[in-house]
Amino acid sequence: MKDLKQQLDFILELDKLKAVYRQALVKVDNNRRENSAEHSWHISLLAQTLHQYAEEPVDISRVTCMLLIHDIVEIDAGDMFAFAEQHELNGQEDKELQAADRIFGLLPEAQFHSMKQLWLEFEQAETSDARFAKAMDRILPLLQNMQNEGGSWARHNVKKSQVINRNKYLDGLAPKLWAYASEQIDIAVKNGWLLNE
Amino acid sequence: MKDLKQQLDFILELDKLKAVYRQALVKVDNNRRENSAEHSWHISLLAQTLHQYAEEPVDISRVTCMLLIHDIVEIDAGDMFAFAEQHELNGQEDKELQAADRIFGLLPEAQFHSMKQLWLEFEQAETSDARFAKAMDRILPLLQNMQNEGGSWARHNVKKSQVINRNKYLDGLAPKLWAYASEQIDIAVKNGWLLNE
Repeated sequence: MKDLKQQLDFILELDKLKAVYRQALVKVDNNRRENSAEHSWHISLLAQTLHQYAEEPVDISRVTCMLLIHDIVEIDAGDMFAFAEQHELNGQEDKELQAADRIFGLLPEAQFHSMKQLWLEFEQAETSDARFAKAMDRILPLLQNMQNEGGSWARHNVKKSQVINRNKYLDGLAPKLWAYASEQIDIAVKNGWLLNE
Repeated sequence: MKDLKQQLDFILELDKLKAVYRQALVKVDNNRRENSAEHSWHISLLAQTLHQYAEEPVDISRVTCMLLIHDIVEIDAGDMFAFAEQHELNGQEDKELQAADRIFGLLPEAQFHSMKQLWLEFEQAETSDARFAKAMDRILPLLQNMQNEGGSWARHNVKKSQVINRNKYLDGLAPKLWAYASEQIDIAVKNGWLLNE
């Protein structure tokens, strides 16, 4: 039963992701900040719903697993705002790698390796599955900010060019989603939710 | 682009599950109540981690999808405590069916049918995938209550027999998990977290 003990330690450790808060707001819950556990659920269903738009073939069950685990390292390394300054990102990659070793390392050997590998695949974004998963992670905050009258963009004086740079990643991967995102960025500028720079 | 509009309406509607609160507590976050969105993430990873214990063969990617959507109906129908009284459950099934039609009905026709069908399969628990998904929904609150010194059991004066009745469902489906759950129930009684009746 050593395996089961290790697996349950991992499962209970995951509780901590419910206490990692992001910049996105939950409008329907008094505009409180969203945590990374509920974000991971939302983005998994986003991928399930939108995978028909992927230009390259993707294995949606792998994409879903990737998205379920993509933020677990934040338990130790914290959440980084998408538009953080370069100096804030110093050392973040190392912290996340150490977190992956510690947290996935709670699992039995074989599961540790497969989960860590899947997380690394997401981070490296060199496979079609990982690229599509990353694309989902770009467009979901845009959808949320549009729903929340600018949300974290407006609060942090984010520029149009920053959001374009981040979301044009969608262009080759899911052109219809990029077309939609572009329209939304224009609306956000018109509404004063993004700086027109 | 009518499909995309419908799909995004569905995605934005899902935000509301982040405001549906359950009886489980998040100990690492000041013992606040857990919401159904983060619960759905946690249980999806529970299934990913423990599927080797399933006695019948299961398709873990289907089980995961089921668990990602299993509580979406709570947006309209609310969460029901596992040990609710019979009179509190009156009409709940109808409310959930109507909720499934309304919420999955935001999606394009084909996705509406496949998501609703998958949700119904979970509810009916007649396939091995659905039974294993249900088994996960029985054991996760037990793990959480053990972590939280009795948690919702202690707060609601739940009896040992009630938890046994609920978790013995695991017996045929995942005997090793049932053996573990039984031991934990005994510990909970000893610690005064469950009434010994």
